[in-house]
Amino acid sequence: MKLEKLVGERFKERPSDCNIDSHALMVRGGYMKYVANGIFSSYMPLKRVTRKIEQIIREEMDAIDGQEVMFPVVMPATLWQESGRYESIGSELLRFTDRNKAQMVLGMTHEEAAVHLVREYANSYTKYPFMIYQIQTKFRDEARPRGGLIRVREFTMKDAYSFHTSQEDLEDYYDRCHKAYERIYQRAGVPEVISVKSDSGMMGGSVSHEFMLLTPVGEDSIAICKNCSYCANMEAAASIIENTRDEASEELKEVYTPNIHTIEEICDFLKTPLEKSCKAVVYQKNHDDSFVVIFIRGDLDINETKLTNYLGCDVHPAVITEECGLNAGYIGPVDLHINGDYTVLYDKSLEGTNNLSCGANKEEYHLTGLDMSRDVADAEYHDFAKIIDGGICPECGEHAISISRGIEVGNIFQLGTKYSKSMGMTYLDSEGNAQTPIMGCYGIGVGRLAASVCEAHHDDYGPIWPMAIAPWQVHICAVRADDAEVKAKADALYEELQRRGVEVIYDDRATVSAGVMFSDADLLGCPLRLIVSPRNLKDNVIEVSARDKSLSEKLAPEAVADRVQELIKEALSK
Amino acid sequence: MKLEKLVGERFKERPSDCNIDSHALMVRGGYMKYVANGIFSSYMPLKRVTRKIEQIIREEMDAIDGQEVMFPVVMPATLWQESGRYESIGSELLRFTDRNKAQMVLGMTHEEAAVHLVREYANSYTKYPFMIYQIQTKFRDEARPRGGLIRVREFTMKDAYSFHTSQEDLEDYYDRCHKAYERIYQRAGVPEVISVKSDSGMMGGSVSHEFMLLTPVGEDSIAICKNCSYCANMEAAASIIENTRDEASEELKEVYTPNIHTIEEICDFLKTPLEKSCKAVVYQKNHDDSFVVIFIRGDLDINETKLTNYLGCDVHPAVITEECGLNAGYIGPVDLHINGDYTVLYDKSLEGTNNLSCGANKEEYHLTGLDMSRDVADAEYHDFAKIIDGGICPECGEHAISISRGIEVGNIFQLGTKYSKSMGMTYLDSEGNAQTPIMGCYGIGVGRLAASVCEAHHDDYGPIWPMAIAPWQVHICAVRADDAEVKAKADALYEELQRRGVEVIYDDRATVSAGVMFSDADLLGCPLRLIVSPRNLKDNVIEVSARDKSLSEKLAPEAVADRVQELIKEALSK
Repeated sequence: MKLEKLVGERFKERPSDCNIDSHALMVRGGYMKYVANGIFSSYMPLKRVTRKIEQIIREEMDAIDGQEVMFPVVMPATLWQESGRYESIGSELLRFTDRNKAQMVLGMTHEEAAVHLVREYANSYTKYPFMIYQIQTKFRDEARPRGGLIRVREFTMKDAYSFHTSQEDLEDYYDRCHKAYERIYQRAGVPEVISVKSDSGMMGGSVSHEFMLLTPVGEDSIAICKNCSYCANMEAAASIIENTRDEASEELKEVYTPNIHTIEEICDFLKTPLEKSCKAVVYQKNHDDSFVVIFIRGDLDINETKLTNYLGCDVHPAVITEECGLNAGYIGPVDLHINGDYTVLYDKSLEGTNNLSCGANKEEYHLTGLDMSRDVADAEYHDFAKIIDGGICPECGEHAISISRGIEVGNIFQLGTKYSKSMGMTYLDSEGNAQTPIMGCYGIGVGRLAASVCEAHHDDYGPIWPMAIAPWQVHICAVRADDAEVKAKADALYEELQRRGVEVIYDDRATVSAGVMFSDADLLGCPLRLIVSPRNLKDNVIEVSARDKSLSEKLAPEAVADRVQELIKEALSK
Repeated sequence: MKLEKLVGERFKERPSDCNIDSHALMVRGGYMKYVANGIFSSYMPLKRVTRKIEQIIREEMDAIDGQEVMFPVVMPATLWQESGRYESIGSELLRFTDRNKAQMVLGMTHEEAAVHLVREYANSYTKYPFMIYQIQTKFRDEARPRGGLIRVREFTMKDAYSFHTSQEDLEDYYDRCHKAYERIYQRAGVPEVISVKSDSGMMGGSVSHEFMLLTPVGEDSIAICKNCSYCANMEAAASIIENTRDEASEELKEVYTPNIHTIEEICDFLKTPLEKSCKAVVYQKNHDDSFVVIFIRGDLDINETKLTNYLGCDVHPAVITEECGLNAGYIGPVDLHINGDYTVLYDKSLEGTNNLSCGANKEEYHLTGLDMSRDVADAEYHDFAKIIDGGICPECGEHAISISRGIEVGNIFQLGTKYSKSMGMTYLDSEGNAQTPIMGCYGIGVGRLAASVCEAHHDDYGPIWPMAIAPWQVHICAVRADDAEVKAKADALYEELQRRGVEVIYDDRATVSAGVMFSDADLLGCPLRLIVSPRNLKDNVIEVSARDKSLSEKLAPEAVADRVQELIKEALSK
């Protein structure tokens, strides 16, 4: 491919609407173009990257006995009504009616379609286990698309579904798939991706893992133990607190605290540490707006995923009105009254603690000397707290948790029977009894992985693509292509490498400076660069360098093709 | 791949809802499953076929300098408003609103997205010509999906768009693309596909070709000259009529014709040939319901495509009410009156003719002795007639037209400036003047091509896939796999062929009869079949046969792998 003919603009200025580097570089490098909020077109360089990623994924899925199939993008609502998700999923599921007024949805995931495809076929235990997968366009009507390809509305995803006759068999396959994912990230050039325990959310099921690329721009927070191998999405990480109790409990006492509304302010006023306070956090249930008040130790925060999992419904931060009976800024666990239905919950961090300050449920007053066991005797305690940096590892018990940010580049779920049961899929076991199959599902977003690799491997000038997914393996710059010898040598090299099956992008523009050539090459990020220039040719050499600066050699022209092939082979075998 | 593990059901009975063989065989063979009207999921065998077709298409598009890109499935309505198609296309364009109430469409074709992607980039004549293409899911809300994958709502399509600075350059590229299409059909195993001139319809532009696979179940009618190379979609074929005129014109005379309503009845009653009559066909314009009356020679039919192209708007068959003033069954060109706006048109087949019968615009009366030049002196004549079997070839003038049915498996259009102009795309020419680029577009439906190949190449027992697109190249049947020697020899062959990179599906089920094995193999349609059986092994041979019955050999086991590779190579080089 000649660079001169490559469709797409490359430019120097960072676009003002790009918050993260990978997005900025992929816009600047002519990889993608904005079409609508969270919807992009891809130019050739990105399409080549994603096709290579897809092929790696395909090979690894085939290697664990996956069968590639294809589900529709547009599905009838009836299919999603069977599983119950037509009702349970919010507006990120795009619903519409077709010309015949039939209700349809755009596929954001395909559990329903997978069960639909196999439920007649897989009617006997002899057909199990099996896994089907597809690589296809999905649409998720995100409220806040961001970060270029990191969080979009339309995306290409590999989604796989496995079916089993026992939990053990699912777990075995789950492990095989976990290993396949590790190979995929390894091959795609991001072996640093780690797997973390995660919350299963709307997918159902219990055990699940996310594969995370750690980066400060990631959307997810991950708790990693510095002492053992523990690693979990903060959403799913248990919070372990060593509660303390003073020997003597003070008396419960009302204190006049005008203009004090936050727990920080009251502790400051009383000159007590935050750990000696009981904070109220108030939500409302989405479906009926009833109040949910959670009490938690003053220095900790609520993990909303744990809360919604416990409640079994979604919540939003409360809007506290006069009518509800709550005294915003003065809410406490003693003598709490709310008009209408409400729920009160207690985080484990308060269990057995004493001598706390808290709201008095009375305008401008707080309490001191709160003893949870004495004053809130009927409280039940659950874990609703966010794990904290420096906190206790739930696995090894050491104070060794650190919190990092990461981008989720894949996930695997043990779904159990959520979909097979609701959709009436059964098989006959060896004794002729009807049983419900157990499922797993396994996803990787292709575009997000491409962007994540770029995020992890770039410099100020452009992406540094790993060999296996680079748009081209080699970038030839013919500096001063108006020089006949340069042009002849570069042309010959281009032909020779192509003949050998090497993927080459060739810049033979006589109209641009070496500087423009090199910055374009930086933006395209091909791992190997060959520079043919009058100066090099005077010494009868061609310059071979690596985009990641790990290599720079000057070779006789006739030695270049062999060396390039060797370097490619080496890089691909890593 | 072991057949035992292949997900999907195969069965004998032809499904009652399948009207054409390819659909019935692809359902019976476990290739596809119905999800909703015109929407299907694909099992592995079909996915493998379509992926191979996609790869052939990709290689041929790359070979004519195509750059693979990707447009979104979901696009903002604003893009389609720019071209005017948001309004001009009917309900086959699926429109919906997203969660933010933005109007969106599902892509059924991507001219708008293509212009959007390149209009800033291609701002100078030096960037031209170029071609971009994608292979992706499209959705077209067809009123009447039919024929399995032949006419669906959701489909995978290769769509390509080329941009040029002159009509000559477009024509050159159009020819290159025409040749690339020929290679694609050749490689996909249907070299019998022909290209025919076509009507450009909603795509705009003038010159266009459709690639047709001739088959009685095709939806399109194609006029083919048996004498010269002329070939056109009936929609686009000019109708050439040798009009005759009797020497003497009879007098115009009213005839009482009770209970006679059709042109056949009146000719029968008068004992005159149909050619001696003037038939009225009545439509209404879709947008205002005004009447359009076309007069045409009694033995000919209206080509509605020519009619709508002439009118520049869509029409539907008229609903004739009493109020409109038309006498249904008695409409004629003399003294015609219709209440409100109306249009009267005359087909060329009537020009200069005389002594015709026609309606008298009066209940129960017809006219005889109609002389068009005398009695309808102000008529203008245009070509609105369908070309007929045995009719005159517009190219060589011989009476050599035959009408065949065909499935459209691809199309190419010279679009001109319809999209670039309406969407404001310009470039500066070498003199610095702003110009509008000229476009071409080029489509192939992947699933439809797969189904068409099956339609063209099958027998009663299943598809006969060409080597290049077969789901697997070789199907091994281990007949009596419970026989240890059979199993061992078949296993060894399976391993050996896989080691050599041959694609093998291996049936080693000990639980089914040879009959079931062979009918499953017929349904999967792999070009080569290897039969390992106790009887064959007694003679120390393995049977190698072709699905198309062109070959049947018995070879020593150790000779099989070489022979198979040779046969594959031979088939792929055709």
